[in-house]
Amino acid sequence: MEPRALLKAWRGRLGPELDAAIGFWVRHSHDPEHGGFFSCLGRDGSVYDDVKYVWLQGRQVWVYARLYRTVPRFRRPELLEAARAGGEFLLRCARVGPGSPKAAFALSRDGRPTKVQRSIFSECFCALGLDELGRATGEPRYQRDGSAVLENVSDDGKELSGCLGRQQNPGHAIEAGWFLLRYAQRQGDAALAAQAIEGFMVRPFQAGWDPEHGGLFAFQDVDGLCPTQLEWSMKLWWPHAEAMVAFLMAYAHSRDPALLRLFHQVAEYAFERFRDPEHGEWFGYLAQDGKVALTIKGGPFKGCFHVPRALYMCEEILEKLLQEP
Amino acid sequence: MEPRALLKAWRGRLGPELDAAIGFWVRHSHDPEHGGFFSCLGRDGSVYDDVKYVWLQGRQVWVYARLYRTVPRFRRPELLEAARAGGEFLLRCARVGPGSPKAAFALSRDGRPTKVQRSIFSECFCALGLDELGRATGEPRYQRDGSAVLENVSDDGKELSGCLGRQQNPGHAIEAGWFLLRYAQRQGDAALAAQAIEGFMVRPFQAGWDPEHGGLFAFQDVDGLCPTQLEWSMKLWWPHAEAMVAFLMAYAHSRDPALLRLFHQVAEYAFERFRDPEHGEWFGYLAQDGKVALTIKGGPFKGCFHVPRALYMCEEILEKLLQEP
Repeated sequence: MEPRALLKAWRGRLGPELDAAIGFWVRHSHDPEHGGFFSCLGRDGSVYDDVKYVWLQGRQVWVYARLYRTVPRFRRPELLEAARAGGEFLLRCARVGPGSPKAAFALSRDGRPTKVQRSIFSECFCALGLDELGRATGEPRYQRDGSAVLENVSDDGKELSGCLGRQQNPGHAIEAGWFLLRYAQRQGDAALAAQAIEGFMVRPFQAGWDPEHGGLFAFQDVDGLCPTQLEWSMKLWWPHAEAMVAFLMAYAHSRDPALLRLFHQVAEYAFERFRDPEHGEWFGYLAQDGKVALTIKGGPFKGCFHVPRALYMCEEILEKLLQEP
Repeated sequence: MEPRALLKAWRGRLGPELDAAIGFWVRHSHDPEHGGFFSCLGRDGSVYDDVKYVWLQGRQVWVYARLYRTVPRFRRPELLEAARAGGEFLLRCARVGPGSPKAAFALSRDGRPTKVQRSIFSECFCALGLDELGRATGEPRYQRDGSAVLENVSDDGKELSGCLGRQQNPGHAIEAGWFLLRYAQRQGDAALAAQAIEGFMVRPFQAGWDPEHGGLFAFQDVDGLCPTQLEWSMKLWWPHAEAMVAFLMAYAHSRDPALLRLFHQVAEYAFERFRDPEHGEWFGYLAQDGKVALTIKGGPFKGCFHVPRALYMCEEILEKLLQEP
């Protein structure tokens, strides 16, 4: 295709695509109650978390105001009103304290700061959005308040709402299971031991095991929504190492053959996929389908710990079991 | 297989696996010069970064000392000596300042703190390792100094050594390319404009494009080593949006048809893979092979910004180009 035809073809495709994108955000992201924008939206636009990231508020104000000001077909009063509602929300809520130049990183739906960061990106994007809003409305007050934001970090409990509160990590549950089982054994608490096995090991394992490719997911959402961790579907070495310890310890405790089968299942997977027969030790990170995604053996979060600890503990438990008559 | 046979089979496999794992760390992770352990090791054990994470130092001391103390075949003097060298390194270097209870998160190879974190995991793993070292050596001084660590955060330039210094992000390079091109145009600096196009757009694009599946990698290592970001091989929406803007702007500047072809290449990919014909807007995160990995449309880092900004800017450039006779 010669250049001009290609340019035309792309122009024909881009316009409707921009319309569809703006249509998506207009339909789904506005908060009529408190002002500002939701950004945690599912594929179909449904809000899966109502946290309001200050970066994204400022950016959306910028997009709306810029389109309104410079693109004739977007010169629609409702777009400017939405930008203004976003700008007012930032002016009212983004500061970590009255008069402070520091903006929060994340706000609750009603505008209380829940997280602050040391970097200045939040302030930058407030300034970006409010500056453009000032141009679009012709009202300089937005421009003067460029680096605005509001209130102080609320207590840490706030961080447990939304998708953070729904987050599951099968590896951590299973790991906690064997910590708890050991504690229950020392206390002689049979009910607690049973709960550790059933509630912390078996159920998280069954929910966290990938029915398609095998292996434990890194993260899940308890309501079945899409997790926000980019690596959620990857298979990490340490949950498998922890699960080997957990199920073997649980089997030794209860002698339920089903627990030994679970040990076998996870150990087979780990030995087949994670171990490196050539250089020793295990790979740390597989793609969902089980292929090695990172060839490193160690890194910021993987070192000499989980693999040897699990092998050592399993060996010890097996030894003890086999010494029995 | 009946339980006992299964137990035996696994016992037979676990022992050699533990030996191989410890063998790996013993062969590759020890630093004979400064003490302590390297943890950033490639598949074959080669050190790809000499940063020393305090967590991992404490954990490795624990593993060595625990194996020495409790497993007869690991009761080898060289294992205890290595644990002791690790413990001494922590006692000497982990504190952020003399007498401080706070431990650094990461140290340079020779033990200067380069990063601190607010969480207390570093202190926990120091205590874990030194406590076990005290048990293994029978010397209580390690146990008394449990939560130890040393010196103060060095200047931020330190963070650019090792794999952090080798990290590439094709999207950021290309994005910086169009920022720079606009600046060069305003300054009337033709040489700078040419450099922005060639050095910041074309070369990073060619190096960052996945020859197997298409799309731009999220992260790369300039020396071709494996990046440490778990999502390195994923295809993120924003680098593609930025590349569309960059190459169309570069084409408008130079009229080199090769640049238009690059725009076409990345835009075709983006439209085919990222856009959601059903609900509007783009998916944000694809697996390496181009399948949607996260179905969310927005989240902590994706909102109403890159997609509409890119479409808006491309439309504007196309409009201008097409108005020419």
